[in-house]
Amino acid sequence: MKALIINCTLKKSRADSNTEALARVLADELKKRGVESEFVRAVDHNILPGVTSNEGAGDDWPKIRSKILDAEILILASPTWVGRLSSVAQRAIERMDAFLSETDDQEYPVAYNHVAGFVVTGNEDGAKHVIAEMEASLLELGFTVPGQAWTYWNNGAALGSGYLENPESNGKKRAVKNAAIAASNLVAAAKALAAHPIPAPPD
Amino acid sequence: MKALIINCTLKKSRADSNTEALARVLADELKKRGVESEFVRAVDHNILPGVTSNEGAGDDWPKIRSKILDAEILILASPTWVGRLSSVAQRAIERMDAFLSETDDQEYPVAYNHVAGFVVTGNEDGAKHVIAEMEASLLELGFTVPGQAWTYWNNGAALGSGYLENPESNGKKRAVKNAAIAASNLVAAAKALAAHPIPAPPD
Amino acid sequence: MKALIINCTLKKSRADSNTEALARVLADELKKRGVESEFVRAVDHNILPGVTSNEGAGDDWPKIRSKILDAEILILASPTWVGRLSSVAQRAIERMDAFLSETDDQEYPVAYNHVAGFVVTGNEDGAKHVIAEMEASLLELGFTVPGQAWTYWNNGAALGSGYLENPESNGKKRAVKNAAIAASNLVAAAKALAAHPIPAPPD
Amino acid sequence: MKALIINCTLKKSRADSNTEALARVLADELKKRGVESEFVRAVDHNILPGVTSNEGAGDDWPKIRSKILDAEILILASPTWVGRLSSVAQRAIERMDAFLSETDDQEYPVAYNHVAGFVVTGNEDGAKHVIAEMEASLLELGFTVPGQAWTYWNNGAALGSGYLENPESNGKKRAVKNAAIAASNLVAAAKALAAHPIPAPPD
Repeated sequence: MKALIINCTLKKSRADSNTEALARVLADELKKRGVESEFVRAVDHNILPGVTSNEGAGDDWPKIRSKILDAEILILASPTWVGRLSSVAQRAIERMDAFLSETDDQEYPVAYNHVAGFVVTGNEDGAKHVIAEMEASLLELGFTVPGQAWTYWNNGAALGSGYLENPESNGKKRAVKNAAIAASNLVAAAKALAAHPIPAPPD
Repeated sequence: MKALIINCTLKKSRADSNTEALARVLADELKKRGVESEFVRAVDHNILPGVTSNEGAGDDWPKIRSKILDAEILILASPTWVGRLSSVAQRAIERMDAFLSETDDQEYPVAYNHVAGFVVTGNEDGAKHVIAEMEASLLELGFTVPGQAWTYWNNGAALGSGYLENPESNGKKRAVKNAAIAASNLVAAAKALAAHPIPAPPD
Repeated sequence: MKALIINCTLKKSRADSNTEALARVLADELKKRGVESEFVRAVDHNILPGVTSNEGAGDDWPKIRSKILDAEILILASPTWVGRLSSVAQRAIERMDAFLSETDDQEYPVAYNHVAGFVVTGNEDGAKHVIAEMEASLLELGFTVPGQAWTYWNNGAALGSGYLENPESNGKKRAVKNAAIAASNLVAAAKALAAHPIPAPPD
Repeated sequence: MKALIINCTLKKSRADSNTEALARVLADELKKRGVESEFVRAVDHNILPGVTSNEGAGDDWPKIRSKILDAEILILASPTWVGRLSSVAQRAIERMDAFLSETDDQEYPVAYNHVAGFVVTGNEDGAKHVIAEMEASLLELGFTVPGQAWTYWNNGAALGSGYLENPESNGKKRAVKNAAIAASNLVAAAKALAAHPIPAPPD
């Protein structure tokens, strides 16, 4: 069983990414449960605007799309900007819009029986809304989302430094605990669907 | 296997409810798959404000809470007012906030391994946002949501009449089709989790 | 110039309300700018479900509605439950839905040239989303919202105690500063519209 | 008085844009009230990821930023994808995040006393949520938003063709009417703030 973690930070490698730091906590928890994670930093790739699976010359999306469909678990990880998910995360969701009309060789919509989880960081309040937006988007595309399949971190009303620079705190401890819960629930849901798949939808 | 459908219309019985009309389409589709549905029209009951499972004298929530936990599938059905879910739906969500700290006799959070689906109607645009709000809320409380576990209906930009008065239309046909998909996915996910439950969360 | 502050806590008087505590900070800032505030704790009143201005016997909404229309500034103040606005706040918005079809004796929609501001508290992340929901609702009903017309407080990822019990912190200082900005912008926008009203909408 | 309309379609020129078609209806209504509009199709430009006003070599944002600040009225126009605003619209919002710390030569935050309006199209339900997201973002950045400063169009539950191909309908008529209301309110609010500006925020 594999997980793909798409880090939707606005910062290219090698800049530090707070979102990646918290996503790695989730990856560690997945690994404890036997699931290897691959990371993609989306902004390092040329993901063209559009809503098809291949937008033509220079489009890096097709290779990311393959990784999504090869993994049982997809993790969308986004920073919070102006209280909302990043444009990079929204771009990934737009490209997955094509999943709505794509079926595999057994007539299954391609996202069915894949599960999705979420990681959000930010300086300030906004994470739960970012999670809600990503949950609703992936559910509409056919992914299944188990309860409490997310972890987040921010300073609330206090602004202040990012996840990486922040000293050990109650908030960071809770984010780590939530990552463990998310990993447990994601792996269990993925296994349940592997054993008992949701069938292709009725016509 | 049982479903509980909480109709969160603002109108008391016996007023016609567009939301109930579409929820009955989903109930029929659940029945075809062997699942009986019970309906609760929340506004007929005295659900006190608060975030505990029993807010004291006169509170009708405890009996609704029992029905939720007795059913494998919960359907939240809401009208759309000013582009948002009804106050009655939000009240039900608030009362389920208590699920976050309640465990069953096997140490499971009470909402774990329950699945949730959604029905939304309205005159005008807004349904997907109402669905998103309800999805995020129930996921946070521990429910699992399979892909495409919803159906909705409205006139988009056109305003006009409600679901019940609306003549047969492409929109109504699509709502019926989406109800069948939702039923199929909800029943399959509930069965998958019954056979392979998500375990109690790590400490 | 007057402000009406509707506190949408779930707790009846005389229970302490964190939301009221932060709303009083905003009221103090409004007072410094010559604006008196009246508080209504909505849950103390019997606000019937519905979308008209008078839902009949026992409905306390008509008197609150009058206060809203008598004040140039409306402040909606809500706690955060499961990441969303309270059912009490949603109920108030639903009842204001009637404003869409009501005009004053000069043919103005009743909410035109009224301005709206927002106060949100909670233990945990979610405030900006609650603000966004309330902003969008009141804008749809005809209120004008100036920039940065809100203040909020929570602990972010840390959970922990509420606004009242929380020790002095960077977050609380920022909430006080934001209240001053909100008051300044609300009073200025209300004065601008008093001098130069938005006209009745074209047919 | 000038308006800048940023069309956030995913399709580059010269592809037809439903969003632009409805935005042109709003531009016509602005023109009737003495306001000229300039259109920018954002996806034709290289707007780099980031949250500063200039992200370096090749960044086309600085010239768009100047146009925003030169106009009294900003219109964000977005399609609806998976129920949400486009990645292109989110990118524009992220780049405006820098407005939070930028002041003009009179110590005003740069977005203060600018007003914002909204245009949203899509096949299916979702517009009001897209409007809400854009409203909340621009309000946080300092723009003022008058009531009912938007127009939208979609088919609701029916899917079907886009705005341009859609035959004359009740929905299209309502979108035109709402564009006239939006133009009236935007111009009036911009004039009110020009005559009575919101002052620089208190320290």
